[in-house]
Amino acid sequence: MSALKAFARAAGQLQPPAFATGSVWLVGAGPGDPGLLTLHALHGLTKADVVLHDALVPGEILSLVDTAWLEPVGKRAGGARTKQMRINERMIALARQGRRVVRLKGGDPLIFGRGGEEAMALAAAGVPFRIVPGISAGIGGAAAAGIPLTHRSLARSVTFVTGHDSRGGLPEETDFAAIGRGADVLVLYMGLRHAGAIAARLMEAGRPADEAVAFVANATTSQQTVTIATLATAGAVAVELPHSAPTLIVIGPVVALRDVLAPLEATPMTLLPIATSATA
Amino acid sequence: MSALKAFARAAGQLQPPAFATGSVWLVGAGPGDPGLLTLHALHGLTKADVVLHDALVPGEILSLVDTAWLEPVGKRAGGARTKQMRINERMIALARQGRRVVRLKGGDPLIFGRGGEEAMALAAAGVPFRIVPGISAGIGGAAAAGIPLTHRSLARSVTFVTGHDSRGGLPEETDFAAIGRGADVLVLYMGLRHAGAIAARLMEAGRPADEAVAFVANATTSQQTVTIATLATAGAVAVELPHSAPTLIVIGPVVALRDVLAPLEATPMTLLPIATSATA
Repeated sequence: MSALKAFARAAGQLQPPAFATGSVWLVGAGPGDPGLLTLHALHGLTKADVVLHDALVPGEILSLVDTAWLEPVGKRAGGARTKQMRINERMIALARQGRRVVRLKGGDPLIFGRGGEEAMALAAAGVPFRIVPGISAGIGGAAAAGIPLTHRSLARSVTFVTGHDSRGGLPEETDFAAIGRGADVLVLYMGLRHAGAIAARLMEAGRPADEAVAFVANATTSQQTVTIATLATAGAVAVELPHSAPTLIVIGPVVALRDVLAPLEATPMTLLPIATSATA
Repeated sequence: MSALKAFARAAGQLQPPAFATGSVWLVGAGPGDPGLLTLHALHGLTKADVVLHDALVPGEILSLVDTAWLEPVGKRAGGARTKQMRINERMIALARQGRRVVRLKGGDPLIFGRGGEEAMALAAAGVPFRIVPGISAGIGGAAAAGIPLTHRSLARSVTFVTGHDSRGGLPEETDFAAIGRGADVLVLYMGLRHAGAIAARLMEAGRPADEAVAFVANATTSQQTVTIATLATAGAVAVELPHSAPTLIVIGPVVALRDVLAPLEATPMTLLPIATSATA
């Protein structure tokens, strides 16, 4: 059976929730592979009138949108408080015009995605909204790299932590020493710039210098690369990696299981050759 | 446009990866709402010959499977090492018979899901496998409860930690004091039984007795309930809650934002009335 028929038969049994005019869905697009979109996300993209999307959402996912118009509102690390306010205002204005608005973000909207701020702005404006969780880059990316984050004999906790603050600096309010002592596994989001400084704090807190570190760039896409280092070498390795690629950093003994899980298949879902990208 | 047509049109553009005979997909079903299945998961369920599923996977998700046979292999907290070995052996035997096997687990297979153990057993047996991430209960459940786990001004880190060990006891190897000092937000999986003991350790580590705690039961389903407590009252509240319902515990100041985000819509995706559940 073709994917089309099988999907349609399964999807035909489902009753999606209403996507009301004048409402906003804050949707997580997942880490990159279109196959990691949720059914809610796909439904939102097919029903929306307008899709406000981050720069990091891949063109293959955007090309699933065919009737809505696409509006990039991406912002990169380093602040841009004003830009966030402009995104909020744009969402509210479009909803007040009676549009069905999807705000599409990489990963999950509430895990380092500022979805909470956007949801609060919508709530304050009286705009109905829905939050559609996505596969967070930390979870999807580690899986695609063959790293089981909470492998039972090695890890009973995993901490997701941002590697820079709102201005792009090392987050001074984060107690990396305590996190290093408490968490069996750490997943750093946006941590490339300060990887060396963070690794130094973890070692000061007693984590071994030879503890494994994995840098997963462009996770779950066909461009995915995995670079292995140790806490001692993480800083030097990080400066050599391309800082333009979204990169996830996993720290902990579970990284070593990658050697065992290497035979896993992780081909992303792709678009059929006949489809043309709406944004290419 | 009907959901069927919209889904089919979008899905018709996609080229799913091959699901080879004699291989196993370890698939995360998400926290409960069928709308939180990923496209990869739906594809796996529609292509599988057999689906080995946990007890916690809702009937609505299982009823999307129509050609495969369903085989429950659920196990609950409290150990059962032998049962895990039997699941591994069953997966391997079915794959060696040339079946396409989906091993369907609640949440994400690698976040407290023992997917790592199952993947390693498959790797050791030379059975090809794929890991399909799912929306972890911690992320999906918190979102459905209106709790933004990493709201920027309140949280730069979130720790996911299991609330019991493999024999159902308090995980003595987990340093809850260090986690309490390091993590801005804690998400306890399977933490109901030891909620009071864990809360006590967090308070000993300096977290305030009036810090907010949310118990989210049956997250993202139509039976979802949210109960709010504090660290001081968490133990007493936990004993009153039904221990048969899967319950997620979120600890941190972000819980209070639920009051602001309360107007969010979170209707699950449901089955059309015409569909009959394959497992009811």
